[in-house]
Amino acid sequence: MNAFQEYYPENVAHCFGCGRLNSDGHQIKTFWDGDETVTHFQPLPFHMAMPGFTYGGLIASLIDCHSTGTAAAAMYRSEDRAMDTLPPFRFVTGSLRVDYLKPTPLAALLEIRGTVKEIKGRKVIVTTTVTADGVITARGEVVAVQMPDSFGIAMPA
Amino acid sequence: MNAFQEYYPENVAHCFGCGRLNSDGHQIKTFWDGDETVTHFQPLPFHMAMPGFTYGGLIASLIDCHSTGTAAAAMYRSEDRAMDTLPPFRFVTGSLRVDYLKPTPLAALLEIRGTVKEIKGRKVIVTTTVTADGVITARGEVVAVQMPDSFGIAMPA
Repeated sequence: MNAFQEYYPENVAHCFGCGRLNSDGHQIKTFWDGDETVTHFQPLPFHMAMPGFTYGGLIASLIDCHSTGTAAAAMYRSEDRAMDTLPPFRFVTGSLRVDYLKPTPLAALLEIRGTVKEIKGRKVIVTTTVTADGVITARGEVVAVQMPDSFGIAMPA
Repeated sequence: MNAFQEYYPENVAHCFGCGRLNSDGHQIKTFWDGDETVTHFQPLPFHMAMPGFTYGGLIASLIDCHSTGTAAAAMYRSEDRAMDTLPPFRFVTGSLRVDYLKPTPLAALLEIRGTVKEIKGRKVIVTTTVTADGVITARGEVVAVQMPDSFGIAMPA
């Protein structure tokens, strides 16, 4: 089973958070798990907020890219299309909200889980949790929007 | 004039976003500019969302750490204390919201500006803009909270 990000067209596969072609980036991999989506990510030692805990910017970044990936996958599902069919769906973030509930341990393998709250036209709203050692440490909500033409990137048709 | 982050106690100066002791991190530097606070940051080529544009997780991270730094500085100001006096103030993020208004160019020097919206007990709310080439590309709001004891880090008294 391929991750959602393996289907991103090559010209939009360089994102630091989720692009498979960004060798310096996080290269997250997101999959369906029933009606939810799941990404696992192991923070590196330097991703610390303070010794022992993960910095909030990484949490935000994981929620962001997990959610835009989920939005794309949800749009394919809603049209009953496989993710390798054309034209591709690719989303950008309209807004991101993160509630930091508890400190997130740095040593734990993080589980990011997304649920599609709403699909409305070109927008998909995704709610996401970050879990470490069985405890939800952060909750996010992303309004993802199909990539506007203003990005000036030609999408393969 | 020192940046806010240069006053962070050593045991809380390792944050990937703002810690002066994290050699792998962004090491942002934030200063007062009248009643606003300002950070400048140059994204690196691999911080891309797609070719030419900055990834949203970096924007979120910059807003986050700029705002917690602003919260600390604002708390010192509200008590009419210099930032090198003890006990220190150090804030964590309770919640973060980012509205992505336009794509943020990767080549531009970013200017992050913060305004203190409210100080209430242990909470400080900071609103922040990210500007590239004179255009506001993102707006953020952070609810920063004085570091709770649950972080288990002894603060120098």
